[in-house]
Parts: sequence; structure tokens; C-alpha cells
Amino acid sequence: MKSIRDYETVALDDANDAVVIIDQTLLPGKTELISLKTGEEIWNAIYLLKVRGAPAIGVTAAFGIYLLAKRMETKDFDVFYREFQKQKAYLDSSRPTAVNLSWALRRMERVCLENREKPIAEIKALLKKEAVEIKEEDIRVCKAIGEYGLGLVKPGDGILTHCNAGQLAACKYGTATAPIYLGEERGYHFRVFADETRPLLQGARLTAYELFSSGVDVTLICDNMSGTVMRNGWVNAVFVGCDRVAANGDTANKIGTSVVAAVAKRYNVPVYICAPTATIDLGTPTGAEITIEQRPAHEVTQMWYREPMAPEGVKVFNPAFDVTDHDLIAGIVTEYGVAREPYTESLREIFNRKEKEH
Amino acid sequence: MKSIRDYETVALDDANDAVVIIDQTLLPGKTELISLKTGEEIWNAIYLLKVRGAPAIGVTAAFGIYLLAKRMETKDFDVFYREFQKQKAYLDSSRPTAVNLSWALRRMERVCLENREKPIAEIKALLKKEAVEIKEEDIRVCKAIGEYGLGLVKPGDGILTHCNAGQLAACKYGTATAPIYLGEERGYHFRVFADETRPLLQGARLTAYELFSSGVDVTLICDNMSGTVMRNGWVNAVFVGCDRVAANGDTANKIGTSVVAAVAKRYNVPVYICAPTATIDLGTPTGAEITIEQRPAHEVTQMWYREPMAPEGVKVFNPAFDVTDHDLIAGIVTEYGVAREPYTESLREIFNRKEKEH
Repeated sequence: MKSIRDYETVALDDANDAVVIIDQTLLPGKTELISLKTGEEIWNAIYLLKVRGAPAIGVTAAFGIYLLAKRMETKDFDVFYREFQKQKAYLDSSRPTAVNLSWALRRMERVCLENREKPIAEIKALLKKEAVEIKEEDIRVCKAIGEYGLGLVKPGDGILTHCNAGQLAACKYGTATAPIYLGEERGYHFRVFADETRPLLQGARLTAYELFSSGVDVTLICDNMSGTVMRNGWVNAVFVGCDRVAANGDTANKIGTSVVAAVAKRYNVPVYICAPTATIDLGTPTGAEITIEQRPAHEVTQMWYREPMAPEGVKVFNPAFDVTDHDLIAGIVTEYGVAREPYTESLREIFNRKEKEH
Repeated sequence: MKSIRDYETVALDDANDAVVIIDQTLLPGKTELISLKTGEEIWNAIYLLKVRGAPAIGVTAAFGIYLLAKRMETKDFDVFYREFQKQKAYLDSSRPTAVNLSWALRRMERVCLENREKPIAEIKALLKKEAVEIKEEDIRVCKAIGEYGLGLVKPGDGILTHCNAGQLAACKYGTATAPIYLGEERGYHFRVFADETRPLLQGARLTAYELFSSGVDVTLICDNMSGTVMRNGWVNAVFVGCDRVAANGDTANKIGTSVVAAVAKRYNVPVYICAPTATIDLGTPTGAEITIEQRPAHEVTQMWYREPMAPEGVKVFNPAFDVTDHDLIAGIVTEYGVAREPYTESLREIFNRKEKEH
């Protein structure tokens, strides 16, 4: 098995006018790179989850809109910009809830607007530069999170993670996996436990694959086995990603994260949320204000579309995320350092640090 | 859908020398009765979980050893007993953690030893009587557990259960489901949450099916959603079964029970273990002395034998059970009343009560 570290989750192949991604719907059975050239191909890849994970989607959209802009033949800015906006709206519609998608496309649009007096050819070059920068920024942010995370553990530690906040979700290090990959490079030899993460099995299909293929000592467990591995003393820290962090530190992440956190509390295992500052939302006071997306019953009752594994017609509750209360969280690891309780203060401090550095 | 209440989980078909069970591996798609005749068929049915649940396994083994004994043609007790012991050891090896299996087989063996002076034909008749009594006792015991359990909740309560400790695990009321079925008969209208219980989905396939088919208000959730339903205040009590209770109250039950218990602790929801005294083992001081059965990786990596959902060759940890520490348990509900902390005393008291009544 070739290491996932030898692949790029999302890459720009400018010579061939393509965005190249790993088709994640084929994992873990097949690691196949596919080239996306048309707007439709890019839209579909995002919509069908061939590329997923907020940062990876953002990078794909940025490369995509650059390639679509590059193809526009006009020299008139207004014509160019009208067409750009049309393509932007189209790509933006592929996953309306993914925050990074709109965010990356808005960043690309700003490049157009701020350089409207320049020749179109130059604007295109600047768009490429911006898209590449979005990707490089993602890599830098994840690496910084990895460095701060690594300071929280020691060689040989047991680490548990839930869902996939790995290279396949962000571009190189992932968020929750960043301390693991950096540690591996430095001979830390962690023993990692990957929760399979029902119902969609991102842990089994993606995280276990990522880590296993890259030589990390990983053991796959069902979500309900976290109690046993922690009770056995095999876990020294939990690292997970997040979808949104509220101002008080309450964290929305993949369903099951709050269960891992309650169990970790029981066994005195610290839980660290790996959170790029882009996912920290000081405008949301607490977890109570975070809307939890409900998903269809068949994700639970049918195991990947084989025969039904539950009685037909039974009620199903299938929330995609849950909220982990801030008092269950030992630290929020950002690219500007580790925030600790009380989060209302420490997260603000993180943002102050960010502003100072910019 | 026919109600599960119209079936028998395990029945003796003496005329055809068979134990008749519902093949639980076919549920919920198909409710099919199968006849087990040879020792191998019985061993396999237990090992392959066609019949599962500690009490149901005990009853199956009792009927099974009776049928195997019935077939022995000798009139010499020593020859008979040697062969009986061989078959007993064989059946006993089918599942290591379930205490009822050994317990039922030992009870059957005692019938042989206590009647060694009688003709073999008479011993065989007594073995049948004992096996039938083990089943009838199970039904009485579960009903008594249901009555005591019902005293711990009120009409309209939310109840969460894990795995299947229902009619399909015991013979009529189940253990964890006994308060639910009795409550249903009396108009309590509980709202039940059934954990799907990975990897083998006993909650989705069996508990959700049992309760749904018999008209109980049941909602299926993935194991990692217990945190959300408890955090939402939807659960007033957890009722689960058990495979073995140690003298200090530590309880071995289906993998994930300790996770539910840790989460319940977090949200101040009481956890009740429904335990026939047959599963309480005062000879086991604590949970540390309970052997946990490890099962094969493919149960986790393949979703019911479709394509692999995890990278080939990845390490998998797949314990069938876990131990819930006694301090996470609000009460152990037996057929002689509810034991509370300190369990070392209260469980002994339960056994005193039992001895007095016999």
C-alpha cells in the first residue's frame, strides 16, 4: 500500500488546466487520482463527497474558480467579472453549508475586485497566486496546530481520535492528525486508536486508511470501545477536529465527540480540540446557539446501502454533529497556541495574537 | 409485521429431538425458526450468535445437553456420565464470557450426579424436567425483574437501552426490556432509545425490532448518539442486561455499556443493571477477574460481509464485552429486589433472600 503521504489531497495541475484530487468515495479500497477540468466536474466532486473536509473543499473551489477564470477569453473586466461571478455562484452551490467553500470563493472574488484596473492576464496570475496561498496557508495552519499539539503529548503515548480530521480533510497534516504526523516524523511512535465513527464511517474508511498507509501504529475500534481502551490505560490524549467552536469553548464536531469526551473525563484523559482560528466563532456565545444538522434515517438503518439492518419503518434519530461542553475540553489547539479554560478569555487572547501577527 | 411476542425464543421439540430457536442472525429481515439437533449444530448456533443473550444461551444449552444425553444408548452410569461430561465440556466451550452457559450445564450435570443410582431412562426424564424448569424459571425471574424495574421509573419516562437484553436474549420478558414490556401492558408509554450496538448491531437488528414489532415507542440511535439524547434531557433511566456481575458490583456486559454508563454519569441519568441472580458471580471478586472475549476483526471492518470498509490489514481491537465499574451503577435489579451500593453487602443480602425463599 502506497502511503497517503505520497499523495496530495488537492493539487493544481496548471499545465493541464485541472484540479487533481484523491477520489475519497473509492477509499479505502482504491486510491485513485482524478482530474477535474470543467465546472461541472468540480461541482460534482464536491457535491458527491469525492473531496470532503472543509479546508480541502475550500482549496478545491479556489483552484477550480482560478481554472475557470483562466479560460475566460475577454479582455474587458466587466465581462470577465460577470462570468467570474456566475461560475463562483455555481461552485458555491455544491455544498451550501460548507463554510470554507464560500470563504475561499469570496477571497478569490476579492482578488478580482481589488485588481480591476489591471490587465485580465495579470488578474488571472494573481488568482492563481491566491489559490496557491489558500492551500499553503492551510498547510501552515495545520503544521502550527501540530507543533502545539505535539507539546501536549510524549513519545509512545496512546492517542484516540474520532471521525476524520486528517490529511484527507485538510491538505497535508490535517488538524487532529497534525500532531500524529509530526510526531511520526520525529520518532514519537504514537499508538493511535481510530473510532470508526458511525454512521458514515469516516474513521474506518479515511482515518484508519490515512494512518495505516503512512506507517502509523493505528488500531481501528468501534465508537463504543473507547471506554475499554481508556479504562485499560491505553490512551493518554484525545485529539479531534471541530466544525465550530463557540466563544465559551463549547465545540460542535462529528456526532460522538461528546461521548468520547464524557468517557475521557471518567478516565482522566485530556481532550484536545484541534481548531484553526477560521472555525472559532466568537459571534456564537455557547453551544446552545449552534444548529445541529439532522440527516436521513437510511444512513443508520442501511449499512452502506446493503439490506436494512433495522426494522422497516422504525424511528431513527440521526444528528450529524453534537456539542461537547467546554468543561470536558482540556484545551483548544489553534495555530496561535493552546487555549485553556476559561475559554471566553483565552479564545479572545488567541484572536488578539492573530491580529498582532497580521 | 407480526409481533415478536407471538414467538418463542427457544423451545424444546422433544418429539423431533430438536431445540427450536429463532435464527437471530437473519433478523430483522426474516423471522425464521430453525431446529438444532446435533451437538455441532447447537455449538455453532451459540458460537455464531444464532441464539444469544446469557439466559437464552443457558436454556439452549440445557435443552441441548438433554437431547444429547437422551441419545446416549448405554445403561451404565459411568459410561453415560463420561459421555455427558464430554458433551457438556464441548457445549461449554462455545462462549467464554456468558456465565449462564456454564451455570445451566452445571445444573444439568448435578441432576445426573444426584440421581446416579436411578436407571438411565429416569435420569434422562429428570434432565428434561430440569431443562424445562430452567426455561420456566427464566420467565418467572425476568417478570420479577420487570416488576422491580418498573418501580424505578414513571409513566412517560425516557429509557435508553444498549444491545439486546430482550425477549430474544431471555425467554419471554427479557431482562432490560422486562420493565418496558410490563410498563407497556400497564399503559406507561415509555419513550425508548435503542443503541444500535456495533459491531453486531444487536440493538438495531434485535431490540429495535422486538420493541417496534410489539408497539413500543422506540427510536434507534447509533452508539455515539447517547451523549446527545441524554444532554437533551430525553433519558430518565438506562436499563441494560449483563453477562456477569462480580461480587463488588462491577458488571460485564456487551461492549459499549461502560461508555453508556460514563455518559449517563455525566448527565445524572441512573444506570440499572438487570441481572438474574444466575448472572451474579460472588466467586468473582471484581471486574478485573472477568475474562473478556475477543472477536475477529472482520466483524468491524466488513459491514455484514459486504466490501471492506477499512484498509486491508489494519489492526482491529474487537472486545465483545466491557466492564462497567460499580460506582457508575445506580442499582442492580434482580428477581429478589434491587441491590444498591455497597454491592459487596447488598448482593450478599440478595442471595440470603434467595436462599430463604428456597
